[in-house]
Amino acid sequence: MAEFDKIYARYLNAFNAHLDEFCTGLNCTPGILNDSLIYSLKLGGKRIRPVLMLAVADIIGTGSDKVINFALALELIHTYSLIHDDLPDMDNDDFRRGKPSNHKVFGAGNAILAGDGLLNTAYSILFDECFKGNEFISAAKYICDCAGVYGMIAGQSADLLHENDSTADEETLQFIYDKKTAKLITAAVVVPSILNGGKYYSELKALGKKLGYLFQLTDDILDVEGNFDKLGKSLGKDEEEGKLTGVKVYGLNNCKLRVDIIGDDCIKIIDGLEGDASFLYDFVSYIKTRLG
Amino acid sequence: MAEFDKIYARYLNAFNAHLDEFCTGLNCTPGILNDSLIYSLKLGGKRIRPVLMLAVADIIGTGSDKVINFALALELIHTYSLIHDDLPDMDNDDFRRGKPSNHKVFGAGNAILAGDGLLNTAYSILFDECFKGNEFISAAKYICDCAGVYGMIAGQSADLLHENDSTADEETLQFIYDKKTAKLITAAVVVPSILNGGKYYSELKALGKKLGYLFQLTDDILDVEGNFDKLGKSLGKDEEEGKLTGVKVYGLNNCKLRVDIIGDDCIKIIDGLEGDASFLYDFVSYIKTRLG
Repeated sequence: MAEFDKIYARYLNAFNAHLDEFCTGLNCTPGILNDSLIYSLKLGGKRIRPVLMLAVADIIGTGSDKVINFALALELIHTYSLIHDDLPDMDNDDFRRGKPSNHKVFGAGNAILAGDGLLNTAYSILFDECFKGNEFISAAKYICDCAGVYGMIAGQSADLLHENDSTADEETLQFIYDKKTAKLITAAVVVPSILNGGKYYSELKALGKKLGYLFQLTDDILDVEGNFDKLGKSLGKDEEEGKLTGVKVYGLNNCKLRVDIIGDDCIKIIDGLEGDASFLYDFVSYIKTRLG
Repeated sequence: MAEFDKIYARYLNAFNAHLDEFCTGLNCTPGILNDSLIYSLKLGGKRIRPVLMLAVADIIGTGSDKVINFALALELIHTYSLIHDDLPDMDNDDFRRGKPSNHKVFGAGNAILAGDGLLNTAYSILFDECFKGNEFISAAKYICDCAGVYGMIAGQSADLLHENDSTADEETLQFIYDKKTAKLITAAVVVPSILNGGKYYSELKALGKKLGYLFQLTDDILDVEGNFDKLGKSLGKDEEEGKLTGVKVYGLNNCKLRVDIIGDDCIKIIDGLEGDASFLYDFVSYIKTRLG
């Protein structure tokens, strides 16, 4: 995995440099608005969506340059969703990436606006991309729909609705996994395809969905078994909030078995891609090894 | 004004028919998400932004058909901003258009998602428009920037920041008026210009700003002097929340004088437009007569 770590770091650094440049250019009044946007953007994190997008763009020959602003917009959307998810009226999380959540620093009102601001800014970036041609518009629209009321927001709504719902079943869990988590990860791997004539479109779409499940399953397990220092967020929150999780539906051990099965599903899809996809094989292992 | 009322009703009905069609097509899961979006969209209201956009599109020869989806997106953005503004963590308003606010019906968590959902859906509509050509992309981007962190959101942030701020002055008030209120109204009158080769661009931009001031000044006065039945929202909220308003900065009487002055400024700008702009003259009177 040493090679993987090196490549991951290269994509991460390239993305963070682009993000830093973006943050430097932000110049909103009042200052508290500017600060609250930058605070959450710079909390760090693994940046798995932008890294995945840059990697897939290289693997299928789209090129990183073409997707870098899409990666930026996607990370802004992801960050907005975390700020709103953490609000007292939503999941009520005081910590994010080892630091106080946005609303703990700036207050809930400002955190609502920070989330709105990041979402809106993501689309301002994407409208600029639209001038480059129809495939850029299609890619922007794809991200928008993955984030929207038939995508991530539907998942957040279902997640909220089924808190403490003892009748909720596997079908509902899959809906939440698919919408809340997998949609944005799917956007990350599909955008490079849309910007490259639809190359491997269906494979990458299927891969995004499976990677989303894999990620959310490991997340659910880590909420039970992880530790704060490594995760940077409060643990045991799912049970406390009565969340519908993989652990709740399958039990902890079956949940771990499913991680292996879905990991294998990912591998089979990656087998279908030509070119050097070794980064993606390693990426699957990387997600799985979060479980330690 | 009988002729004005007829024309206003025609634009309003055309817009509401388009909005109804849009709402009928919405089909989100879970149902509570769908219901919460439609609830706020169908609370009614004067729809001044879409009506203005349709009217200006006719006056300068852009045509209503070309702007109808922009009007829809703008109304979705306006509606999202009201839902988030009304939240307990923001202005804490229990009523909107004579009915319980979104969060009073669906809870604050769902109201946050409803706002996010409307904002995102507005951009999904606008990305579809982008395929029609570069001027459509420019118009979409214009709306996005008016709504964003250098536009409406900056105004909301300043509005929140200067609650109970006894040192805030006229400059700050003008910033809030300009960003929080005038930006979306400016978008309404400028989009028809962008979609028509920039016709009367600077005049319409100046008009939008003045109309925004006029609207917010009358709003501030009505919060002191209006009545619930006519306004459909709680009164006296500004003082209760320590808001920075025109009434606070200028005093009630001077505020009314300024309404006349800014109304005259609007008229002068409208004088510079060729074609039949009688609707716009009457629109200025219409806003002023809200004061009764």
